[in-house]
Amino acid sequence: MSQASIGDMLNDKAKEQMKNMSDSNKNISEFKAGEKADGFYLIKSFEVKKTTNGKQYIDIDLVDKTGEINAKIWEYSKETESIVAESAIVKVRGEVLEWNGTKQLKINKIRGKLSTDTIKINELIPSAPIEPSEMLTAVKSYAKKINDSEIKLLVENIMKKYESKLFYYPAAKKNHHSYMGGLLYHTLRMLQSGDKLGQVYDFLKMDYVYAGVILHDICKIIEMDSDEYGVVSDYTMEGKLLGHIIQGIKEIEIEGEKIGLSREKSIILQHMVLSHHYEPEFGSPKKPMTPEAELLHFLDIIDARMYDFEHALDIVEPGQFSDKIWLLDNRNLYKPMEQ
Amino acid sequence: MSQASIGDMLNDKAKEQMKNMSDSNKNISEFKAGEKADGFYLIKSFEVKKTTNGKQYIDIDLVDKTGEINAKIWEYSKETESIVAESAIVKVRGEVLEWNGTKQLKINKIRGKLSTDTIKINELIPSAPIEPSEMLTAVKSYAKKINDSEIKLLVENIMKKYESKLFYYPAAKKNHHSYMGGLLYHTLRMLQSGDKLGQVYDFLKMDYVYAGVILHDICKIIEMDSDEYGVVSDYTMEGKLLGHIIQGIKEIEIEGEKIGLSREKSIILQHMVLSHHYEPEFGSPKKPMTPEAELLHFLDIIDARMYDFEHALDIVEPGQFSDKIWLLDNRNLYKPMEQ
Amino acid sequence: MSQASIGDMLNDKAKEQMKNMSDSNKNISEFKAGEKADGFYLIKSFEVKKTTNGKQYIDIDLVDKTGEINAKIWEYSKETESIVAESAIVKVRGEVLEWNGTKQLKINKIRGKLSTDTIKINELIPSAPIEPSEMLTAVKSYAKKINDSEIKLLVENIMKKYESKLFYYPAAKKNHHSYMGGLLYHTLRMLQSGDKLGQVYDFLKMDYVYAGVILHDICKIIEMDSDEYGVVSDYTMEGKLLGHIIQGIKEIEIEGEKIGLSREKSIILQHMVLSHHYEPEFGSPKKPMTPEAELLHFLDIIDARMYDFEHALDIVEPGQFSDKIWLLDNRNLYKPMEQ
Amino acid sequence: MSQASIGDMLNDKAKEQMKNMSDSNKNISEFKAGEKADGFYLIKSFEVKKTTNGKQYIDIDLVDKTGEINAKIWEYSKETESIVAESAIVKVRGEVLEWNGTKQLKINKIRGKLSTDTIKINELIPSAPIEPSEMLTAVKSYAKKINDSEIKLLVENIMKKYESKLFYYPAAKKNHHSYMGGLLYHTLRMLQSGDKLGQVYDFLKMDYVYAGVILHDICKIIEMDSDEYGVVSDYTMEGKLLGHIIQGIKEIEIEGEKIGLSREKSIILQHMVLSHHYEPEFGSPKKPMTPEAELLHFLDIIDARMYDFEHALDIVEPGQFSDKIWLLDNRNLYKPMEQ
Amino acid sequence: MSQASIGDMLNDKAKEQMKNMSDSNKNISEFKAGEKADGFYLIKSFEVKKTTNGKQYIDIDLVDKTGEINAKIWEYSKETESIVAESAIVKVRGEVLEWNGTKQLKINKIRGKLSTDTIKINELIPSAPIEPSEMLTAVKSYAKKINDSEIKLLVENIMKKYESKLFYYPAAKKNHHSYMGGLLYHTLRMLQSGDKLGQVYDFLKMDYVYAGVILHDICKIIEMDSDEYGVVSDYTMEGKLLGHIIQGIKEIEIEGEKIGLSREKSIILQHMVLSHHYEPEFGSPKKPMTPEAELLHFLDIIDARMYDFEHALDIVEPGQFSDKIWLLDNRNLYKPMEQ
Amino acid sequence: MSQASIGDMLNDKAKEQMKNMSDSNKNISEFKAGEKADGFYLIKSFEVKKTTNGKQYIDIDLVDKTGEINAKIWEYSKETESIVAESAIVKVRGEVLEWNGTKQLKINKIRGKLSTDTIKINELIPSAPIEPSEMLTAVKSYAKKINDSEIKLLVENIMKKYESKLFYYPAAKKNHHSYMGGLLYHTLRMLQSGDKLGQVYDFLKMDYVYAGVILHDICKIIEMDSDEYGVVSDYTMEGKLLGHIIQGIKEIEIEGEKIGLSREKSIILQHMVLSHHYEPEFGSPKKPMTPEAELLHFLDIIDARMYDFEHALDIVEPGQFSDKIWLLDNRNLYKPMEQ
Repeated sequence: MSQASIGDMLNDKAKEQMKNMSDSNKNISEFKAGEKADGFYLIKSFEVKKTTNGKQYIDIDLVDKTGEINAKIWEYSKETESIVAESAIVKVRGEVLEWNGTKQLKINKIRGKLSTDTIKINELIPSAPIEPSEMLTAVKSYAKKINDSEIKLLVENIMKKYESKLFYYPAAKKNHHSYMGGLLYHTLRMLQSGDKLGQVYDFLKMDYVYAGVILHDICKIIEMDSDEYGVVSDYTMEGKLLGHIIQGIKEIEIEGEKIGLSREKSIILQHMVLSHHYEPEFGSPKKPMTPEAELLHFLDIIDARMYDFEHALDIVEPGQFSDKIWLLDNRNLYKPMEQ
Repeated sequence: MSQASIGDMLNDKAKEQMKNMSDSNKNISEFKAGEKADGFYLIKSFEVKKTTNGKQYIDIDLVDKTGEINAKIWEYSKETESIVAESAIVKVRGEVLEWNGTKQLKINKIRGKLSTDTIKINELIPSAPIEPSEMLTAVKSYAKKINDSEIKLLVENIMKKYESKLFYYPAAKKNHHSYMGGLLYHTLRMLQSGDKLGQVYDFLKMDYVYAGVILHDICKIIEMDSDEYGVVSDYTMEGKLLGHIIQGIKEIEIEGEKIGLSREKSIILQHMVLSHHYEPEFGSPKKPMTPEAELLHFLDIIDARMYDFEHALDIVEPGQFSDKIWLLDNRNLYKPMEQ
Repeated sequence: MSQASIGDMLNDKAKEQMKNMSDSNKNISEFKAGEKADGFYLIKSFEVKKTTNGKQYIDIDLVDKTGEINAKIWEYSKETESIVAESAIVKVRGEVLEWNGTKQLKINKIRGKLSTDTIKINELIPSAPIEPSEMLTAVKSYAKKINDSEIKLLVENIMKKYESKLFYYPAAKKNHHSYMGGLLYHTLRMLQSGDKLGQVYDFLKMDYVYAGVILHDICKIIEMDSDEYGVVSDYTMEGKLLGHIIQGIKEIEIEGEKIGLSREKSIILQHMVLSHHYEPEFGSPKKPMTPEAELLHFLDIIDARMYDFEHALDIVEPGQFSDKIWLLDNRNLYKPMEQ
Repeated sequence: MSQASIGDMLNDKAKEQMKNMSDSNKNISEFKAGEKADGFYLIKSFEVKKTTNGKQYIDIDLVDKTGEINAKIWEYSKETESIVAESAIVKVRGEVLEWNGTKQLKINKIRGKLSTDTIKINELIPSAPIEPSEMLTAVKSYAKKINDSEIKLLVENIMKKYESKLFYYPAAKKNHHSYMGGLLYHTLRMLQSGDKLGQVYDFLKMDYVYAGVILHDICKIIEMDSDEYGVVSDYTMEGKLLGHIIQGIKEIEIEGEKIGLSREKSIILQHMVLSHHYEPEFGSPKKPMTPEAELLHFLDIIDARMYDFEHALDIVEPGQFSDKIWLLDNRNLYKPMEQ
Repeated sequence: MSQASIGDMLNDKAKEQMKNMSDSNKNISEFKAGEKADGFYLIKSFEVKKTTNGKQYIDIDLVDKTGEINAKIWEYSKETESIVAESAIVKVRGEVLEWNGTKQLKINKIRGKLSTDTIKINELIPSAPIEPSEMLTAVKSYAKKINDSEIKLLVENIMKKYESKLFYYPAAKKNHHSYMGGLLYHTLRMLQSGDKLGQVYDFLKMDYVYAGVILHDICKIIEMDSDEYGVVSDYTMEGKLLGHIIQGIKEIEIEGEKIGLSREKSIILQHMVLSHHYEPEFGSPKKPMTPEAELLHFLDIIDARMYDFEHALDIVEPGQFSDKIWLLDNRNLYKPMEQ
Repeated sequence: MSQASIGDMLNDKAKEQMKNMSDSNKNISEFKAGEKADGFYLIKSFEVKKTTNGKQYIDIDLVDKTGEINAKIWEYSKETESIVAESAIVKVRGEVLEWNGTKQLKINKIRGKLSTDTIKINELIPSAPIEPSEMLTAVKSYAKKINDSEIKLLVENIMKKYESKLFYYPAAKKNHHSYMGGLLYHTLRMLQSGDKLGQVYDFLKMDYVYAGVILHDICKIIEMDSDEYGVVSDYTMEGKLLGHIIQGIKEIEIEGEKIGLSREKSIILQHMVLSHHYEPEFGSPKKPMTPEAELLHFLDIIDARMYDFEHALDIVEPGQFSDKIWLLDNRNLYKPMEQ
């Protein structure tokens, strides 16, 4: 049952089956044991299994923006089989059960997304708050600000090479910006901050700041395998054995040679990529030796932390603390009361 | 021989003595063994000593913006004694000697600064690149941006309390911003950066950002003893036993109570001061738990690092590396070639 | 259902229900699956929940000195509702079940503590081995030994302020001395040890030793929220954002100012509180700079460790090792054989 | 020129030479360049050297309780040669010179200690404040308190074995208690403290506390080579390759076997020695697993720290800070003002 | 039910029962829920338990080379009781069940190993790939290469003392070489590597290399309690309180004294044992001070790591990564594709 | 005065001057103050300076295999100027002086090396104990053992590229193998050890072992600037900003692409280079994930350590300890007594 089956046409019987389904769309995070569930969800993965009695059933992991739940289809027709596919958007009706504190959805009805359904992908899966094409345009406008024509060409060539994947790649497998378009969003906010701090610290060479930001994480695209929804299944073989920092350095070396980029500029940019994680134990065997490389590190970490704080406090009431957040050294964050 | 003797009137004979002195002003960093030296310098400290023969001489440490040198006056009159005072600006003529690789100035002539001399203090001693009064006005304008009237009053009261010392206090005994007006300059640049990053990360509560920046280091004024030239002789007793972070927390607690600042706001501001060094081993037993406290840390460290990089590279030729810089983990910084 | 309902009078019917209940009191640690349980326990917390069938039941956590167990009341009357309250002492009869290795108590009968029941609170909950009033008297006698009248007044004022809470506050949320009266017991044993070591190291200024011990942890009372049984529900907002060390410093600063305590003495005492955890990563940004502060740290840690060792070995047979103890870096402690 | 030459008889001529020497005894720490020096000192080491002109002279290091100075005898007779010996006490007269900030003594006259001189060794060299024989008696009285006859016999046997060296061995080559009798003094104070804390923590098995204290450092005697003045020239070969902890364990194993000490007791005592430095990086690969081993560590460190604090503050004025003390993590200690 | 019951004779009825059992031998790692299982396994441990209904059953842990499974015998006769013994080899037939993702074997038939069964112990339990007697001969041949007669005698004496246990002792409780004969296998491979590297680094004193390797871990035999199948139940009391490094040092000291081994050689060998873990936190308070001690450490770690890598990659397909391996700092190992 | 002036012809007068010079060749390490010195040395660096009197003199650093000394030529002719050149071999006669404990050579006569002088460069400067050409042949023979033709071609191509520099490059600026031919010698010994350990651990893929060893440090040639005597003046710009590990990875990537090396093999080799320093803080952000990469690390460190131990003990007497060796964590190494 391949990816190609997403959006397969439904036959009449299936349409008939579906017509009683209400329009209510319930978020996964709101599921309560003993209640009905109804709505559009994305199939993250599925498997056909057998009970101990030898009866086949479908085991599915469903996601939406708010969470994830395991679901079962105990009885199903051939038509159902053609609907269930990885990354397919489906409309589902069922009952929420609870088993040892873990919720599970028993699916009673399921159909594929119809052309008349207005549900959009970014309503179903976590994604950056700005449209990818808009972000790409913005990032390109910063690339255009680069005065040095060699550096500008390098940056534009590398961006072109990865442009189609930039539309959906996340910035990480998990943690900050690990959602569709996250890599682009992370890059854009760092460019905005870099631009502004360049006004305060006006001795900085902005060509390196802009180029460094755009290139610093771009090889995450070849470090990780992401589907078109920004979900990373795994790291690649080269990603595991070398990592995006080493990959990014080679990218600049090779693409730089192609366009005759001066060794000086190439090495400085490679050094920026090499040193941007700052600490050896986080992957940077050299510390920044230019002010632009130093700033790059702080632009990176500020954007990650602001992301983490904003999202962690989203679900906290004013005057309350969050749970301990592992990513932030187990801190309990505090949300100040509204003034 | 007290501070009060700076600028003592010279008698006629002394004036006569001085009239052959050229206008050339040589920087201490340019002194070469075997050459003459001539110029205005600041007396950092001095002591009257005796040779093994029992003859009195004056041992002086002279500074200017470029460095420091030990000097001796072997023969001198009563008039000279009245000129030599700590923190006095003097015009000196002598010869540079070298002893085991260490330079020393043998002073032949010395006089105090005349009212007709146009030399200014900030030409002689390291100081912030902006006039203190201008910086103070700028910092106050950020304080005015605070919407919450309680927090604004707190900030303004504390600034008022320390205003006269803000004119000259450095931000450190040594290291970054350890010059006259350095504390104010450091504060101002952090405010500028905070203001700008607040435009990128627009969920931040800017009242806390502005107040946190202004208050975070203000108790360095009671942690260190600085003279009016921004030279710190030592830490205070309370500074050594508690430190400016603890002092700053108490300041907010007490001044907050005086104006009826709500506990919530007072504690949040105290927490910002407490956590701004981020790591326990650098003095912060708690890590930031609000996004504004988190940002405060990065504003602080970025400003320190940009200062360090800018100054370390000042004296490096393009295409060359600096010496190892202890403050920056012994990095050799690189100054890119001009493009 | 408020705290006020503890000890509510039972109506006749309830009394009738109870009269068959035996006097046997079984410790929670001795509960075995499949057996009956009967005895007095403290209600740590409870919640009214619904089964998937919509039927209400009460979910209770019961504790005694030996442990804790989750219990359910599936059928209950209005009278039962009035009995079940947080921190109430109840007499319970039921059956012990086991579910995936976890024990649970099915409560068949429950009643409140009668005035005729002789059970005492310190038989039901973990508490210090000495009566609070006796401990308080002892601690006060050490305060009286302070020769310096200013320091003595400071210590007595602060003790008076927190006296009522000293009766039951534990020294921690968990870990050492985390039981009713634990803070006082910890303080008292440190005073005893300090007194004795002061005889060996007779150059020590005992005024600072006694004052430092009494004040070092006293702001745990405003760092944590404890009920009157020494059970800490959570840290306070100020406790989380600042911590008892910072709070203790402010306490001394402010109370010291009120009575005109000299700056010298106030700062030395504040420094003792600041440095008593010794390592930055445990909350002390400054290391002890006076011998009395140095000793304070060791008095604190010795008392904590002796507590940990004594309690860990309580349940070990001579000639055997304890399990790994996380608090003590996963050591297996050894209990020597009786000689 | 051997040790045996200490106290050689002086011939008449030498006596004549000396008779003008005054009785004034000047401490080395008070030597000032350009002044005369006169007094009794101990010869720490000496060497006969040649000038570039081929002329022989004697190069001597002199010490007293207050410090150490290098001295030269440029002209000398055969008699002088017989006086100068390592560890000899001599009376010296000379002039203090200064060379690049380092003081040196030019010796004009020197003679050996006469039987009529009342100077005592502990007036000349650093040593414990109690007489060795008195300390030994006190330590033995603690050994007698051990109830278990096997453990008591073990302790007494080992003490007997090293008794003659215990009279003068220091506790260290440098750092705390690195003076004559220091090992005994350190042991005694730990016994006193252990005795007292055993009254507070009355569950402790005092036999192990006393035995552990007496044995914990006793193999420093075979780890280091000390002369009879408590000056350690070097560590022994076995000391360097194994260290006193390992040596102490073997001592207990072997001496225990000789007297039929039970394996249980032997291993527990060996474990106490093994774990008393607490941290692997300080030489203890195992952490204490019995409460007595845990306490032993704290008795050890408290005594070392109290020694360090007391001595560091000896030379500090009330209300002042000491210099940075490397041994104490570069802390500046504070000496409170007298009240 | 003692160890002696292994291989108890089966009565006729039992033989009858067994005769239908097929010869198929299924590995534990291949067990699938819902399928039959049949084969020879080793009883690691067992316990007679009761159901909540009071019915007795036997709870057994079975192992073979491929894994471990919990099994239950719900119905059984007296004969069965005599068969079930710790470390017994049994033939078993049953059904594999699954419970919350954990497999369990329901045993229907069980019998002891018959004299006619050809199953060997090293087919059932993890063990070194070479016969113990063969390994022992090989290790002894290296001991014979030692030229120094004292050192050779020491090594041979100590080996003789532990020879019977060397046949089966593992090198660890878990981790590398934690199987039957593992200690001998680890020792042998280190000897082979040491021999070869001695050809490259020909300044090494091979007597110390061979002796050091043979003695470095030999006291694991008195640090751990292993049964004759190389399964370690626990560490010994002395093992926990001192550890095999300290035990090995004492062994050399004492056995060396017996044969008059020179102090020099004894201490050098003790130092090799002491330092072979290299880092204090891994148990070596001294770092190697001879080249032979230095090499010993690397021989040890190379053999451990090669073992870990070989075994971790055994179950990985070429071109794939292993799971994260905790022992190897959570690395995912990669198995290169066959070329 | 350029390198080209080495070996300039001497005119007759100079020859005359030299003819009285004896043939004795004194090692720098044997120089004693007040004695004559005479022999061949290498000029490491030199500078023409002026005395305070304005008189020119030549300041030279001379080296031989045993050490280094600063020398001065106070009087000299034009001919002398043509002789003195960096890296020139010269014959020198003079007197050894001493100044504050530092020796200095006053040169009275100096001439260049004559064609009739039989002195060889490796008698004057530290160099590997095997002839470079012999080492190169040996290394190539290991490269030939590689079975995989792609990997063999890669290795041979990269070796060819750097062949001329391999003849003299050291393996480091200082520390182990920092002498002429050191890189080749280090590589060869690692190949020998790898070959031998591959016989013990026969599951290893030797192609990767041989290739990994040859390539692991080869980019030290572009990381450091070495003269033809193996003396490194500095690191290169790319060396400082990236380092030889990153440079080596790029080398394999680019050279691999040229010959169509499969991605799998290229990445595995790059990973070996990346991980061979093992710890992030030593430059390896990834730990080895293949057994061959793991072994490579140990081959590298064993060779470095054996080098350090052998050289440190060279100058130690049997039965003695070396001084503390900073490179080896300040260990004092022990040289066992000859047996």
